[in-house]
Amino acid sequence: MKTSLGPKTIAFPLPAYLVGSYDANLNPNIMTAAWGGILCSDPPLLGVSVRPTRMSHDGILNHRAFTVSFPSVQLALQTDFAGLTSGRQVNKFARSGLTPVKSPLVDAPYVEQAPVIAELRLFKTVELGTHTLFVGQIMDVKADPEVLAEDGSLDIHKVNPLVYDGAGYYKVGDFVGQAFSIGKALIRAVAE
Amino acid sequence: MKTSLGPKTIAFPLPAYLVGSYDANLNPNIMTAAWGGILCSDPPLLGVSVRPTRMSHDGILNHRAFTVSFPSVQLALQTDFAGLTSGRQVNKFARSGLTPVKSPLVDAPYVEQAPVIAELRLFKTVELGTHTLFVGQIMDVKADPEVLAEDGSLDIHKVNPLVYDGAGYYKVGDFVGQAFSIGKALIRAVAE
Repeated sequence: MKTSLGPKTIAFPLPAYLVGSYDANLNPNIMTAAWGGILCSDPPLLGVSVRPTRMSHDGILNHRAFTVSFPSVQLALQTDFAGLTSGRQVNKFARSGLTPVKSPLVDAPYVEQAPVIAELRLFKTVELGTHTLFVGQIMDVKADPEVLAEDGSLDIHKVNPLVYDGAGYYKVGDFVGQAFSIGKALIRAVAE
Repeated sequence: MKTSLGPKTIAFPLPAYLVGSYDANLNPNIMTAAWGGILCSDPPLLGVSVRPTRMSHDGILNHRAFTVSFPSVQLALQTDFAGLTSGRQVNKFARSGLTPVKSPLVDAPYVEQAPVIAELRLFKTVELGTHTLFVGQIMDVKADPEVLAEDGSLDIHKVNPLVYDGAGYYKVGDFVGQAFSIGKALIRAVAE
């Protein structure tokens, strides 16, 4: 018998995205976002939800662009810091020691120290309540060569991304199984 | 210098949701979804993206409801199986040994064996391309008492959810730090 916890924003796992944008004066800004995810395969779309009161909200709207930097465990303090502070009070890049890089493809900055980043053009804006969902079209994903496997794909343990649960940050743990593969055992079991 | 990987649907971490719905004959169905996430705090909204060709697509639209069951590592095979097969060919609940439970709040079934589940009323439908984004309002979250911490919150290591990266499933690993807390070290460091 399950226990009711109420209508809470609970999901596993949550991401901890560093969302990059420029303000009206082209100052680079970042904010931490746990609300969002990949939303479509073609066009490749990733959405992040942002409160209208956030400085990033107008930055994304004005420049029709944003980036998502996927922070590694090594950037946990900086990621949490970017969620605790406002770009109106502090230059979050400078104060956290992170380096903004102007995307060559979209009008937004990404975090040089993040092992993997995505550059997004604003595709759709959906007002949902406390948050505005910004759906961005992924124009490119860039990664540090050190986090690639030998076949050129991303090695999640080299990326070492933060996993979030609404209260704390965690590492990615042991491999469990291959997708589109381990479930075949159940198909075979039934066929026999 | 980062390497360009192209406009791919890459993000860390991705979820592996089991999305539950009823078909036109009230048969319970599940599908695996990695595209989605929490999208708004108030109202509490969670979105999942589904291809129109999927049986679940019409089920969610017709019943204006769905559930998300968050599978534990113990359900990895069943989760992968639900992504490999179609409810048109097979009763995925029966074949995978999972038990459908009719939600008392919305017109959709959830997975009894999942440690945490969310019940959602369809709030908004957004057509994005290959996928339709179903934004659901979270009416309740239910959890097995065994996965709760002493203070009544969810213990992520007891939930033991699957983490997905587009190719494989992983466990949640070591604790890194407390959110809205560890970043304060950078604020203090600057203030000093």
